[in-house]
Amino acid sequence: MKLELPIALSNRHIHLSQGDLEVLFGEGYELTHMRDLSQPGQYACEERVDVVGPKNTIKGVRVLGPTRSNTQLEVSISDAFKLGVEPVIRNSGDIKGTPGAKIVGPKGEVEIEEGIIVAARHIHMHTKDGEKFGVKDNDIVKVKTEGPRAVLFENVLIRVDDNFALEMHVDIEEGNAAGVKNGDIVELIK
Amino acid sequence: MKLELPIALSNRHIHLSQGDLEVLFGEGYELTHMRDLSQPGQYACEERVDVVGPKNTIKGVRVLGPTRSNTQLEVSISDAFKLGVEPVIRNSGDIKGTPGAKIVGPKGEVEIEEGIIVAARHIHMHTKDGEKFGVKDNDIVKVKTEGPRAVLFENVLIRVDDNFALEMHVDIEEGNAAGVKNGDIVELIK
Repeated sequence: MKLELPIALSNRHIHLSQGDLEVLFGEGYELTHMRDLSQPGQYACEERVDVVGPKNTIKGVRVLGPTRSNTQLEVSISDAFKLGVEPVIRNSGDIKGTPGAKIVGPKGEVEIEEGIIVAARHIHMHTKDGEKFGVKDNDIVKVKTEGPRAVLFENVLIRVDDNFALEMHVDIEEGNAAGVKNGDIVELIK
Repeated sequence: MKLELPIALSNRHIHLSQGDLEVLFGEGYELTHMRDLSQPGQYACEERVDVVGPKNTIKGVRVLGPTRSNTQLEVSISDAFKLGVEPVIRNSGDIKGTPGAKIVGPKGEVEIEEGIIVAARHIHMHTKDGEKFGVKDNDIVKVKTEGPRAVLFENVLIRVDDNFALEMHVDIEEGNAAGVKNGDIVELIK
């Protein structure tokens, strides 16, 4: 049986801590919901910030909600080169020792010491999907795409949680390298 | 025995016909050699042009020499979306029916009817490399990369010629998706 699931391409985005949000947008500020994302409880916000790196600024980086305990900026390798910071492949939340930058909002700016990552490719799945696919949280699998730019992605992290929906996440460069679009079906290979 | 070869990441660039070169840079104009590329006889030029698509302009696209029989613009999928043209994966030279755009140089501009491609990943090799690797011109192989972003590229075209040097060519998005840099060693798999 083929183990199939949808893929989604993540553009650059930032998760903010409540503290940083208030420095950037004003005291007591709350994020403005724009649209739900595929993962339950996650949403894109109307808010955007500018990221000032050692080399260049990337303007209008989308904020995702809700706020988190630590501010985390997720970029592509090309974005990292443009900013002038080392591209560091990390799993979400694992930001220790990663590069920082200046984040600029309409009401203030904050210099983050760390938090810029190139997100490692991963698959979100609900606990029942984990059972169906025969994999568990933190497993590493491969994923195969079809078409003229077909690739086999190795080192794909499995994330299993009762709050996750079945979807593989790659960044724009990975998605384009494989010639896939949001919602395309890919194959998990154990 | 592992079949190993170096990989190189191609940024967006344009090959110009002599006719288009003269429209863009002036009558009788000749390209200015900046540096040799890895393929014998090919070179990056001092000249740059702007490409005006239906949606956006990409400025400062590097011209590669020597001139060719047809003008051909090679971009990434992200570049194609930025310009506002359909990203069409093609082998170099196979431009029939591909999108066009307005090319702007310092002395004039030219509207190309076709010629914008997203270059299909391929391997250049000398005839003696073809014998050593046991492959021939137009064969399709796979290529494996190493590291945290390891991928297996499928549908890799083999190009064998006495004027070619051994090297795999991918675009920036493919290279970053695989986490490879210019000169990294990859493995050909038949």
